[in-house]
Amino acid sequence: MSKSKSETEDSVLKRVSSPQDLKGLTLDEMNLLARELRQTIISQVRVTGGHLAPSLGVVELTLALHKVFNLPKDKIVWDVGHQTYAHKILTGRKDRFNTLRQLDGISGFPKRSENPCDCFDTGHSSTSISAALGMAVGKHLQGDPGRVIAVIGDGSLTAGMAYEGLNQAGDLDEDLIVVLNDNGMSIAPNVGALNKFMSRALSGKAYQGFRKDVEKVLRGVPGIGKELIDLARRSEESLKAFSTPGMLFEAFKFNYLGPVDGHRLDRLTETFEMVKRLKGPVLVHVLTQKGRGYEPAELNPAHYHGVGAVKAKDAPKQPPSYTSVFGRTMVELAGENKNIIALTAAMPEGTGLTEFSQKYPERFKDVGIAEQHAVTFAAGLACEGYQPVVAIYSTFMQRAYDQVVHDVCLQNLPVVFALDRGGIVGEDGETHQGLLDISYMRCVPNMAVMAPADEDELRHMLKTALEHKSPVTLRYPRGCGLGAELKGKPLVLDWGKAELRREGSDCLLLGIGVGVKAAEDAAFKLQEKGHDPAVINARFAKPLDEELICAWAEKTGRVVTIEENVLAGGFGSAVLECLNNRNLLDKVKIRRVGVGDTFVRHGSQAQLRALYEVDADALEKAALELFD
Amino acid sequence: MSKSKSETEDSVLKRVSSPQDLKGLTLDEMNLLARELRQTIISQVRVTGGHLAPSLGVVELTLALHKVFNLPKDKIVWDVGHQTYAHKILTGRKDRFNTLRQLDGISGFPKRSENPCDCFDTGHSSTSISAALGMAVGKHLQGDPGRVIAVIGDGSLTAGMAYEGLNQAGDLDEDLIVVLNDNGMSIAPNVGALNKFMSRALSGKAYQGFRKDVEKVLRGVPGIGKELIDLARRSEESLKAFSTPGMLFEAFKFNYLGPVDGHRLDRLTETFEMVKRLKGPVLVHVLTQKGRGYEPAELNPAHYHGVGAVKAKDAPKQPPSYTSVFGRTMVELAGENKNIIALTAAMPEGTGLTEFSQKYPERFKDVGIAEQHAVTFAAGLACEGYQPVVAIYSTFMQRAYDQVVHDVCLQNLPVVFALDRGGIVGEDGETHQGLLDISYMRCVPNMAVMAPADEDELRHMLKTALEHKSPVTLRYPRGCGLGAELKGKPLVLDWGKAELRREGSDCLLLGIGVGVKAAEDAAFKLQEKGHDPAVINARFAKPLDEELICAWAEKTGRVVTIEENVLAGGFGSAVLECLNNRNLLDKVKIRRVGVGDTFVRHGSQAQLRALYEVDADALEKAALELFD
Repeated sequence: MSKSKSETEDSVLKRVSSPQDLKGLTLDEMNLLARELRQTIISQVRVTGGHLAPSLGVVELTLALHKVFNLPKDKIVWDVGHQTYAHKILTGRKDRFNTLRQLDGISGFPKRSENPCDCFDTGHSSTSISAALGMAVGKHLQGDPGRVIAVIGDGSLTAGMAYEGLNQAGDLDEDLIVVLNDNGMSIAPNVGALNKFMSRALSGKAYQGFRKDVEKVLRGVPGIGKELIDLARRSEESLKAFSTPGMLFEAFKFNYLGPVDGHRLDRLTETFEMVKRLKGPVLVHVLTQKGRGYEPAELNPAHYHGVGAVKAKDAPKQPPSYTSVFGRTMVELAGENKNIIALTAAMPEGTGLTEFSQKYPERFKDVGIAEQHAVTFAAGLACEGYQPVVAIYSTFMQRAYDQVVHDVCLQNLPVVFALDRGGIVGEDGETHQGLLDISYMRCVPNMAVMAPADEDELRHMLKTALEHKSPVTLRYPRGCGLGAELKGKPLVLDWGKAELRREGSDCLLLGIGVGVKAAEDAAFKLQEKGHDPAVINARFAKPLDEELICAWAEKTGRVVTIEENVLAGGFGSAVLECLNNRNLLDKVKIRRVGVGDTFVRHGSQAQLRALYEVDADALEKAALELFD
Repeated sequence: MSKSKSETEDSVLKRVSSPQDLKGLTLDEMNLLARELRQTIISQVRVTGGHLAPSLGVVELTLALHKVFNLPKDKIVWDVGHQTYAHKILTGRKDRFNTLRQLDGISGFPKRSENPCDCFDTGHSSTSISAALGMAVGKHLQGDPGRVIAVIGDGSLTAGMAYEGLNQAGDLDEDLIVVLNDNGMSIAPNVGALNKFMSRALSGKAYQGFRKDVEKVLRGVPGIGKELIDLARRSEESLKAFSTPGMLFEAFKFNYLGPVDGHRLDRLTETFEMVKRLKGPVLVHVLTQKGRGYEPAELNPAHYHGVGAVKAKDAPKQPPSYTSVFGRTMVELAGENKNIIALTAAMPEGTGLTEFSQKYPERFKDVGIAEQHAVTFAAGLACEGYQPVVAIYSTFMQRAYDQVVHDVCLQNLPVVFALDRGGIVGEDGETHQGLLDISYMRCVPNMAVMAPADEDELRHMLKTALEHKSPVTLRYPRGCGLGAELKGKPLVLDWGKAELRREGSDCLLLGIGVGVKAAEDAAFKLQEKGHDPAVINARFAKPLDEELICAWAEKTGRVVTIEENVLAGGFGSAVLECLNNRNLLDKVKIRRVGVGDTFVRHGSQAQLRALYEVDADALEKAALELFD
């Protein structure tokens, strides 16, 4: 559909290669361009998957910003960055847009390394105001007249960090433009008192009611002078300012403008032309519709927030995802254990908790994009005897590290951290990889760290974590399981015990999480080459099963560990520490397979595992080196 | 002073051992008790040091809460927890109050393990609303009528986490009481737009002006009916609600009460009696004076926020603290390098940046208690070519871990993290130890980690970090330096190079940071026992000086590392990884000295180093074991 359109003679998109090309376009041409951009995005996401609904919602906003401001002299910091497809197409990446999210292709998020119009790498929520303020202060100090714009969604405003940024921005009185892209959604529908306040205020009921009161009274008073009407007008205006969202931003000393219809290019450009001339912190409130222009996404924007490539009808059936197995097991266990409470930070669907939220609404809390609060809130629940399961993606758990250390582990409270997307996540790339959690969790006293070898073991590990009355990190990968049979009820595994999968005599392949499958595959290949590897599924990175691991390390004399985590301080490092503590390293050689000291970019999980050498081939190679 | 008073016959404090004992006291007795509590606190802090000003500010507030509510059935979560001295004295710890902050004595912060009236361990700012909300939800689910109260300072409200908590609390509509202890200070005077808004609102100028307008107009109108007066009153009240801080909390759907004079016991108890009967989220705004009742602290509350024990007049002069050397070096380097910007999160004095802030006010930013924002703000500045130095205590840097990873390291921006209080901090105990930073920073790609052996090396390391155009963590300990001569200008050290301090033949003592002095002391003792240890000052935990370390490891065959960090994933672990990568472990034995997998409690630094075995004795012992 997109192709036939963009290939016609009257295509505007064909003529646009850089923001400069927008400057002379008429309103009609801009509107046509908006349609073409939408079609291009929809077509591409069908092929590569991607963040569809957010990008569709800001097409006009993106066009208006690029028409009025001049990038890269002016700067736009896109909060989260998953809404930048139109921006990418307009800033010289039209021809490479078909490589979106693919290995060596363009990223789904802004990347400084990709284009000068991407001024800040985003990916996690609510960083834009802080980053933009830093740039604005920098420009101020060096007398650079360029403008800095942060584009932030209303969902991102539920994170405390955005508030910290607003608070300082208003205080410093720098020339900063914040565009509030208000679509009434974060990824899932928004939660939080403030959100409700804003909706209430927008509908203006309080204000309308007051206005009627005023009129009624004034009508009943004889001889009304000009002064009284003035007073009424003035108080009306005061109340209006206070009963709209403006009041909140005015409290932060922002100049508030809006709300503006975010799909009307004329209104948007008019507003930004005015804003461009304003000094000090300005907030422009823009109302948009997530998924705009694609009916399925308009109707279910949470589901179309990020979507996979469209699958062929005859594609083979995949095993269930780890996420869905986690969700189902939560429902199952919550039936037996009334103390389980599920918490998510704006990701009920992404973390597999939708069914739980429907079945146990009292025991389900979505705190919004507020990971810090989620963890300490869980600690408070644990103090009252509950067993909170905090389901947050590995990469986002970094947001609540202090709360994990200080509020949960220090008090040794029974909170389970269910870290989905642990390891290599694939197409979302650098900002979404979950490659640090074993290292940053393992070093915290009182914390245990587990990772299942397959989706069935995830069920048992969740049960086991909930039986253990201390903090537990349970990390599991993105994507579908191995096809393991999900039989019987979840069982309590022996605490701190690994599983010997294969006896062997000349080396030990020691995996954790997805590494176990790699270890078994490598073992098969090594056998073919005449070796006799033992295979252990570690299950626990902490506490390590020191007995079993050391026994087989000694028996075989060669150990290779494999994990989807950085090598520094990770699982292999824990094994190395253990073998050293037990004085085994004079007779046992050990190699560690994992991700080196680098950020892992985007591509498919399989491509990245091969590229960064954390797969069965890498494991086999490391083992063979030990035989040399 | 305190003693003579509390020993008189009419002492009320003598009669009070638990909150129950307050119930029958008259207002006069309560006021007398408040004076006695202040005297007790002042006397004790002169001996042991402690958080003087915060605790003095809430004496009446504490008394009123304990008079009206019933702990431990009801719960008080004290935000930060440094204001709980009166609470501790009133809840059965009067007789042990003289052990405050001392090894095996009572903690300066609330501890669940210490007393049932301490319901949550606090120490870091802005966790109280989240924790209290968790408890309130827990009580609601199990039908427990106990009330939960969070006591939070206005400074703590500058942290985003508090906002996240408010946002959900208003949304959930649980029975939660938040007491805003508003003293216009966090540790240093508050910053932030919202704070100014609150002060402006409190002074009520906008409201007063409007009121005068109304009266003027009404006076000029003949035949004013009752309705018009009603209208005026109503609009007056609306505006009042909107132009006081109440408006903000009402936006969060809190029922707002106040402000109340926080030193009037009658008003406080009256207010809390009323609040006790209210349902849903309630915010009580209490105005207090930090340092109240002790003139020096009233005049300079930031300085008297936390104080050391009073020193004898003839105490020997100490070397300058690492903090002050850092501060002076910042001033010196900023004179040559116009790109340096200093950032602090509400700790200008604590991080040694006071002089910098006076000399370079344009290039100094105090962001308030907002570590997350501080780090991303720094990233924004770095994007504009500046070199931000973010000075935050090690333990508080945990708050901004995701921002360090995602906003600084991922983009490889030149931000220097100056982590004061790295290692064992002493009397503040568990919540303030900086024992994780080497582990959690070392695993992040692009991040370098340095620690100086003495205060002179700190100067050179700061210079070196600023020359390096990538993220650097520079961690240094609390307290005074070793007395090293601070000569010449700060120099650029060779990047990633360690320093051989002593050649030796039978073992290598490899220290980082304060561990270097321990290594030298241990080397001396080992020599006396006939050994010949080499000593290396590692300087860098990352990148390690692999060449030098491996060369001397091979020469000596025995390595002992020492660091003030947990052993899991720390410096010693990095050395172990390195020796293993280089296949040296079949001929080199290595032992790692550091803190085990445990939280370190309070006591003096020297006591704790001995107790947790991270001093020269522990190092010597580990080395001797290698000789067995």
